[in-house]
Amino acid sequence: MSPRFASTPKPPYYAVIFSAQRTGGDNGYDAAAQAMAELAARQPGYLGAESTRDAAGFGITVSYWDSEENIRNWKRNLDHAAARQQGRAQWYSHYELRVAKVERAYNFAAPETD
Amino acid sequence: MSPRFASTPKPPYYAVIFSAQRTGGDNGYDAAAQAMAELAARQPGYLGAESTRDAAGFGITVSYWDSEENIRNWKRNLDHAAARQQGRAQWYSHYELRVAKVERAYNFAAPETD
Repeated sequence: MSPRFASTPKPPYYAVIFSAQRTGGDNGYDAAAQAMAELAARQPGYLGAESTRDAAGFGITVSYWDSEENIRNWKRNLDHAAARQQGRAQWYSHYELRVAKVERAYNFAAPETD
Repeated sequence: MSPRFASTPKPPYYAVIFSAQRTGGDNGYDAAAQAMAELAARQPGYLGAESTRDAAGFGITVSYWDSEENIRNWKRNLDHAAARQQGRAQWYSHYELRVAKVERAYNFAAPETD
């Protein structure tokens, strides 16, 4: 499994917050989601992503970017646009997408215990 | 269950993005998390929250606020500060917290099918 936390630089940078309710059944979702995550990671300005989903199919994915311009470039990617169209047709019953500028960040990691 | 999606106003507003890895065991977490969610919802400037966690204990909670000042006020709440301290001592092995200004938002809801 890839790391769950994104290693982001010092702010400012941008976050795309995507919260979504999945429909039932796979319908090609898992393979497409993995392909999109890999494609996103190769785009200019991509800084990382964090993603989780519960057993009820409610998920939140936050991807981090260096600029609004690179978020827009990724939105214009044709494979990504096709995946979004299929998302609305099949995979999601509802989603909210918010683009935000990260201004401050903190973190915590517990000391390792052996 | 309360609604999974936050009904947020037109941007701009603020998001606190909290991604965290839970430790094993409850240790009072579930009750404290519910109490904190209810307390947050009564604070001035609170707009809503979205939260999910997978079976591996990796969760993302995004809370939405009308201003940075009200985020700071909530941070200064003494019960909240005590909960954060217990979070670092017991409940989380790692977390990342980012404060971001939401600049644009979109959503999608599938047509109801009966």
